[in-house]
Amino acid sequence: MSLTVVGSVAFDALETPFGKRDKILGGAATHFSLAASFFTQVNAVGVVGGDFGGDEWGVFRRHHINTDDIEVIADGKTFFWSGRYDYDMNTAETLDTQLNVFETFDPKLSENSKRAKLLFLANIQPTLQKRVREQCPDAKFVAMDTMNYWITSAKDALLETVKVVDCTIINDAEARQLTDEPNIHRAAKKILDLGLKAVVIKRGEYGATLFTKDGYFATPAYPLESVFDPTGAGDTFAGGFMGYLASQDSIEDDTLRRAMVYGSVMASFNVEKFGTQRVDALDYPEINQRFKAFKKMTHFEDIPFERATTAA
Amino acid sequence: MSLTVVGSVAFDALETPFGKRDKILGGAATHFSLAASFFTQVNAVGVVGGDFGGDEWGVFRRHHINTDDIEVIADGKTFFWSGRYDYDMNTAETLDTQLNVFETFDPKLSENSKRAKLLFLANIQPTLQKRVREQCPDAKFVAMDTMNYWITSAKDALLETVKVVDCTIINDAEARQLTDEPNIHRAAKKILDLGLKAVVIKRGEYGATLFTKDGYFATPAYPLESVFDPTGAGDTFAGGFMGYLASQDSIEDDTLRRAMVYGSVMASFNVEKFGTQRVDALDYPEINQRFKAFKKMTHFEDIPFERATTAA
Repeated sequence: MSLTVVGSVAFDALETPFGKRDKILGGAATHFSLAASFFTQVNAVGVVGGDFGGDEWGVFRRHHINTDDIEVIADGKTFFWSGRYDYDMNTAETLDTQLNVFETFDPKLSENSKRAKLLFLANIQPTLQKRVREQCPDAKFVAMDTMNYWITSAKDALLETVKVVDCTIINDAEARQLTDEPNIHRAAKKILDLGLKAVVIKRGEYGATLFTKDGYFATPAYPLESVFDPTGAGDTFAGGFMGYLASQDSIEDDTLRRAMVYGSVMASFNVEKFGTQRVDALDYPEINQRFKAFKKMTHFEDIPFERATTAA
Repeated sequence: MSLTVVGSVAFDALETPFGKRDKILGGAATHFSLAASFFTQVNAVGVVGGDFGGDEWGVFRRHHINTDDIEVIADGKTFFWSGRYDYDMNTAETLDTQLNVFETFDPKLSENSKRAKLLFLANIQPTLQKRVREQCPDAKFVAMDTMNYWITSAKDALLETVKVVDCTIINDAEARQLTDEPNIHRAAKKILDLGLKAVVIKRGEYGATLFTKDGYFATPAYPLESVFDPTGAGDTFAGGFMGYLASQDSIEDDTLRRAMVYGSVMASFNVEKFGTQRVDALDYPEINQRFKAFKKMTHFEDIPFERATTAA
């Protein structure tokens, strides 16, 4: 099944304890498409400026990502974000944000992008997300991300958008903030109750959890001794998750579970190097080997306990 | 195999958003023995005052826990701890600590307790832990807990103790503090490198992880919408973990994995009511049913990805 993503394409400047990069390819739609491209055909919808160059387009082209709907505003500049990570690598401190051409981003979907069976609305203004969703009537499974900024500044619009998607892929702090509910399981249930099929909670180094009406699935994060650059890990997770679903033509429980793991697999690679570098260079044997590692690190035999002697 | 635990037996006073208790049975050795008693014969080593009454002894007796080595100092008072949990239920604020008879606790192990094949050193002064360990030369698998207080005030003694056990069962903040290592995987490796067989990291609502020389295993916590009283959850986990190992006469990787899950199962029950109330009333079908639930919430089929069309 085809997959369309709408979101930011950007340049990032990063400082981590492991090094510094002045201007590398970033953005939610970028990380998402790159991860998803290993599983399915992806249409990316976004906007860039005249400064977006051959190297950047090359990354998309190498992975057969359809960039027809990435609008180029030749006399504008690409969205630029600059951030710094401290030693614990959990939260980024934003040093600079220049929205540039992204400030007036008005997603224009071609007929091809509109016909997608799966749609991912990356973190953009909720009203825009809703408008895009309405342009894709054939979409069988629509997922969205958001961020604390929209929960604070546009909560009503955001809730209207949540009601027209099938799945949210957000982090635990966002789920708590969106529902005013400190317990994550109750928070997820409140979101599900808005009419969704699935709620995915990203928990950083603790992995990710999937809530559906009938069940619950939890996967740990891959045990990495060095997280090099966490930028884009959440979007890479979403790309692996949605890409795998698209490839399987199914949103059954079994498939959703494996999609959670493929999402975690892709995110674990993303953080190993700066920006898109690691995922760009990935191959299928590496993906499947890490998928197997996830199986190994969570597997146990289902053997009920029986007391040998008289029960207490 | 027999199992001995050395640690506190206490009265707790608790305030949570769900209620208040003035004086209920608590203590690390209590929660541990109670959980372990479902799997094996437990010898509890501790000290109480003359105020320790029939109801309290009744809990131990009901679960066939050997209390011969719980010393009674008739004219003393039992260790008393008072704490309050806020709405997020993650950290306890200590309101009052009265060590009482526990201040001069000098564990006295009978021959029976010394012959145990498994030994758990709950959170007490590290030098005492080491002395107890040395009194149990037959112990095949010795695990220990500790707390931030000892890491700060007696780090050298603590490290000496860690070197003579097989396994630490500590929380993630403690592992980071003990090793000065913010990355939990590197922290665990540093502890393993002191010569241990296994390092168990308790992560509260995020579950628990097991590190051994050859592998890594992660289990989520049971998804509870209401955590009623988290006091003793860590010791209850340790009791389920060590109790299961004792029952299986094995410390192979497969057994350790199931022990991690049985530990998580017991801890998930512990937090459902105040103090020992829930585990005290537990039965085997409940334990096995929740074990099955852990299997269900972590299971996925190991199906490698194959791209249907030409690979990207």
